[in-house]
Formats: sequence, C-alpha cells, structure tokens
Amino acid sequence: MKNRIITISREFGSGGRTIGKKVAEMLKIPCYDSELIEKMAQESGFHKEYIKDVTEENSGGFLSILSSRAFGPNNEDYLWKIQCKIITEIAEKGPCVIVGRCADYILRDKADCLRVFIHADMSSRCERIVNVYGERDEAPETRIKNKDKRRAAYHRFYTNMKWGHAQNYDITLNSGTLGIDKCAEIVKNLY
Amino acid sequence: MKNRIITISREFGSGGRTIGKKVAEMLKIPCYDSELIEKMAQESGFHKEYIKDVTEENSGGFLSILSSRAFGPNNEDYLWKIQCKIITEIAEKGPCVIVGRCADYILRDKADCLRVFIHADMSSRCERIVNVYGERDEAPETRIKNKDKRRAAYHRFYTNMKWGHAQNYDITLNSGTLGIDKCAEIVKNLY
Repeated sequence: MKNRIITISREFGSGGRTIGKKVAEMLKIPCYDSELIEKMAQESGFHKEYIKDVTEENSGGFLSILSSRAFGPNNEDYLWKIQCKIITEIAEKGPCVIVGRCADYILRDKADCLRVFIHADMSSRCERIVNVYGERDEAPETRIKNKDKRRAAYHRFYTNMKWGHAQNYDITLNSGTLGIDKCAEIVKNLY
Repeated sequence: MKNRIITISREFGSGGRTIGKKVAEMLKIPCYDSELIEKMAQESGFHKEYIKDVTEENSGGFLSILSSRAFGPNNEDYLWKIQCKIITEIAEKGPCVIVGRCADYILRDKADCLRVFIHADMSSRCERIVNVYGERDEAPETRIKNKDKRRAAYHRFYTNMKWGHAQNYDITLNSGTLGIDKCAEIVKNLY
C-alpha cells in the first residue's frame, strides 16, 4: 500500500515551512525540509551550501539550469537524481510531510500525496522574511522575486509543471489572508 | 462596513456551482449564479441566451472578445458594465455566495471577499458533465476544453488576471481528489 504523504510547495516567505512543521507536529509524523539537503550532501559528497546553490534555492542565476549540457548531464542533473532517490526512500518509510524539492512531482506515482501549495501577497512575505531571516542589503521584495523566479524555473525544468498553477495541487492556500495557523489546521484536517 | 462575500470561480464540470449552493445553504445566505443572468437580461433588454453567449459562457469563438472594437465598445463591453453594476449592488445588500462572472475581481475593493477557485482533473469533470448535463454530440473532453478556454480568455480580457493562478485566490480546491462535500465544508468553515 502506498504511504500517505503531504507535500508542501511554497513561495519564499509564505510560511510554507512553518505550516509543514505544524502539520507534522499535530499529526505526529516526521517533517523533512533541511534534512533533505543533509541527506543529499551525504549521498553526493557535495557541500550543503553548494547543493542549496545549484538546486531549488539556486542563487547562481536561474538560467544556469537551461545551459551547460552540451557535454551531457551536469551537477544539477546529478543532484536531481539523488534528490529523487532520497525522496522516494523517505516516502517508502512511512507517512510524512515533505517541504519543497518537487516532492509532489517525484512521488506522483509512488505515494498517496496530498499536494499543497502555500502563497501570500508580497507585503506579508516581505514582513515575514525580515522577521525570520533578518535584514539584508538587498530589499526584501528583490530577494523574494529572485527566489520565486529561481524556484519556478527549477520546477519547470525538472517537472515540466507550472509552479503555482492551482491545477497541479489538491489545495492551495493564501497564508497572508488566512493566517499560518488556519492553513496548518485545514491541511491537518484534510489528511 | 464591507459585506463578507464568497466568490467561487470554477472550471467547467468541477462542481463549483454545487459547492456554492451547498456553502450558501449551510451558512443560510443567498447564492447567486443563474440569477445573475436573469438580472442582466432585465437590465440590458437582451435575451438570456444571448447574454450567456457573449459573456463568460461565450460560444461564439473565444477570440470575439479580442476584436470588433474599431468603432468603440461592443455588446460584450456593455454587458460587462451591467454585470459590474449588478454584482456590486448584490454585494451591498448583504453577505452571499456568487458563482462565476469575475465577481472576485469586480468586488476587489468593494467587499470583504473570500476568493475560491474550484478545479478537478479531466476525467472527473467528463464524468460529471455527462451526469449533470447529459450526452452531447461533442465529446465531453472537447466541451470542457472549449468552455475553459473561453472562460480563461474572458477573465483575462476583463480582469487582466490569470484564471486558475493560485495567487489570485485565498483558496483553491481540487474537487476531484477532495470531493464536493469536503470542499463545501472547508469553504464554509473558512467563512
């Protein structure tokens, strides 16, 4: 029997990670988020920061995923394979929450997924990232736009799905208007 | 004080109308759907079937909304103005559910809206439209694709918003995987 997994995709600053942790706590199941990067580092031999850099959180320019394959698969492709393997193994172990990393796509035929997408308006996200991650030289809006652009491009490249398109999910929630606790409660009740 | 309105946008065959009716019944507030067409017919002098034809349910080819304005606004534009007026008046009267007709956009500054989008996978929608509306010469999938294309083009033209884009709503629900009753319950509880 396939395990029941909650996958949470999220816009940067929308609180998707916090919602994932809350849902997992309420349901008493594990939540995988940064643990995935650690597992990928162990498996690949690459450094955690490098993995963050070339995968979903890619800060090396979002077009890098579209180039440099003239001589075959590159490091992103290698890490994508490892990511698929790790997420599949986790899903086989038992019910859990997985935040980000295209888990909904990777598990589409391998688990019974509740596919969630969390988003919020720009002003709540700006407020949130400054509270959670602190001020940076770059304006919060610029940080958010860059991150979103990269996540969207990464998802599009590896999954061929439009990120944030309602039709790809079972439920999408606006944490800005509904609140983080309410979102967590709705997802928990749906499980 | 602004009234609390639930606006339901929906893919054809996703059961959005049924969900709207159920939510309104549970909350004991009115639900406006085909009543809007009747009001528009009274106000404009046009026949109901004609209104359906040139507005959201446009069957005259979805590109008609992009053309024929060389000599000023056309009948679609005239009906759009009437639609805006009627939806605004309804929202001023008191809390209610409004299905379709870009109500979320029309009321964006005029009411406290809970913006819902209902969708479902193609196979559940095909099954549903054959059950609800009966067989037609045209295959269910073709009927659905045509209707969706027209609704999306109509929305895009008058609202400049992408139809079905999660970011435009407070919540989007997949009635195919979650079930119509569950969707109605979630929306009711959010109100």
